[in-house]
Amino acid sequence: MWCQSCKEEYEEEDAGTCKECYEEASETEEELKREIDDLRSRLLFLRLPFPTLDAAATGHADLLLHASCCAGSGGSDSDAGRLDTPAVPAHRVILVSFPLRAFSMASRSPVFRAMLENEMEESRSGIIKIYDVTYDVLRAFVHYMYTAEVLLDEQMASDLLVLAEKYEVKHLKAYCEKFITSKVNNDNAITHYAFAHRHSAKQLLEASLLVLMDNMSTLADREEYKELVEKDPRLVVEIYEAYLNRQVNTAAGKDRSH
Amino acid sequence: MWCQSCKEEYEEEDAGTCKECYEEASETEEELKREIDDLRSRLLFLRLPFPTLDAAATGHADLLLHASCCAGSGGSDSDAGRLDTPAVPAHRVILVSFPLRAFSMASRSPVFRAMLENEMEESRSGIIKIYDVTYDVLRAFVHYMYTAEVLLDEQMASDLLVLAEKYEVKHLKAYCEKFITSKVNNDNAITHYAFAHRHSAKQLLEASLLVLMDNMSTLADREEYKELVEKDPRLVVEIYEAYLNRQVNTAAGKDRSH
Repeated sequence: MWCQSCKEEYEEEDAGTCKECYEEASETEEELKREIDDLRSRLLFLRLPFPTLDAAATGHADLLLHASCCAGSGGSDSDAGRLDTPAVPAHRVILVSFPLRAFSMASRSPVFRAMLENEMEESRSGIIKIYDVTYDVLRAFVHYMYTAEVLLDEQMASDLLVLAEKYEVKHLKAYCEKFITSKVNNDNAITHYAFAHRHSAKQLLEASLLVLMDNMSTLADREEYKELVEKDPRLVVEIYEAYLNRQVNTAAGKDRSH
Repeated sequence: MWCQSCKEEYEEEDAGTCKECYEEASETEEELKREIDDLRSRLLFLRLPFPTLDAAATGHADLLLHASCCAGSGGSDSDAGRLDTPAVPAHRVILVSFPLRAFSMASRSPVFRAMLENEMEESRSGIIKIYDVTYDVLRAFVHYMYTAEVLLDEQMASDLLVLAEKYEVKHLKAYCEKFITSKVNNDNAITHYAFAHRHSAKQLLEASLLVLMDNMSTLADREEYKELVEKDPRLVVEIYEAYLNRQVNTAAGKDRSH
């Protein structure tokens, strides 16, 4: 027989589908591709261009966000107030957004919303300081609010996840978490496991725990392990508990199958 | 043989694909579906909620659009100035939008942009009158700017196409044109043909011309035909020219094949 797709001959034991199913599948694929084209063109339409500093100067953007790396972790108060990196301009309507009925994800940032809709200092001045973040990360964060696009590496994904969690931008947090999860391996699993714990990233937590449990024999030799025992021994306990739990379940499964 | 997809038996002459191609196609389908999910969730994120009149009153929306049906086609000047339907609130940043490099479609409305970025009356007052349009159509138009979504019937699609053309919202115009094109039949082909001509809707023009050429024997009996001969005979000439052209080409094709 001749395959209608690759046009090569095949034997009966290599048969895949009947003609009807092949034709249906081809139609489905075409439909899916058309849907993708349609969704992409809507996305392009809805994407708003990231405002320039010019736009802010001429009054088109009504917010200025300032990244401040120094505050929080050890920076002095005067450091926190310094606005020495360029500002990131933005529009209130884009950052705040009101939740669309039935689309809970569509409320871009409830935190910005609370900040800008109440009579807080930020709302009056239009100037918002964002602490513990570099200019590049803040810029990528605001850019995402306009375009739903960002170029990630592991560092950027971690930094953005933290910021997205702080400002409750669920969609961006989920996007970063998915990216980091795809990068989990034996070398970084402890770091990602601890990170996932700190930032309630369930998918990443599960993925790194799985990798850790598959490599228990070398776990205790790792430098990051020793650090975690020092810093947060309860998290280490949870790894052992999960591991033991899995062993017990596997044993019970084997018993049942005998 | 047994089909791996529908699980039914089939004969050799009903064979579709080999196993390898079947498995590849299944993977492709899964990938396309994942991409659709991803695009949909980005769309949901980028969709902005349509502002309420409350938002305008409390200063969150900085524009008010007024539909005015009366002007243009016979309305008096005083009619044109009447603002008796509710206003449609909007944000400058959403209507104007700056073109994103490489995405020419992303400039939502160059016309609004020119209006609001120059020191025109509309820019100062934040009040824009939109002529020859009902409140419902204007509302759907602005809603589309926030969500890239609209519920169409043929009337709404025609009205929105006209408005989208006037304000150069290419994406919406293309969307409406596609919808109307899908509804072309022998009964409405003349109307749609003339409409497509008036509004430079090439896809719709071609689709209605094809239907007209397939039904030439009854063309001249139609009421809309007689009206078009009265109103714009050149358009009727173009139908006949296209028909003749096709006949000549078909004959030439037959000659070559003999």
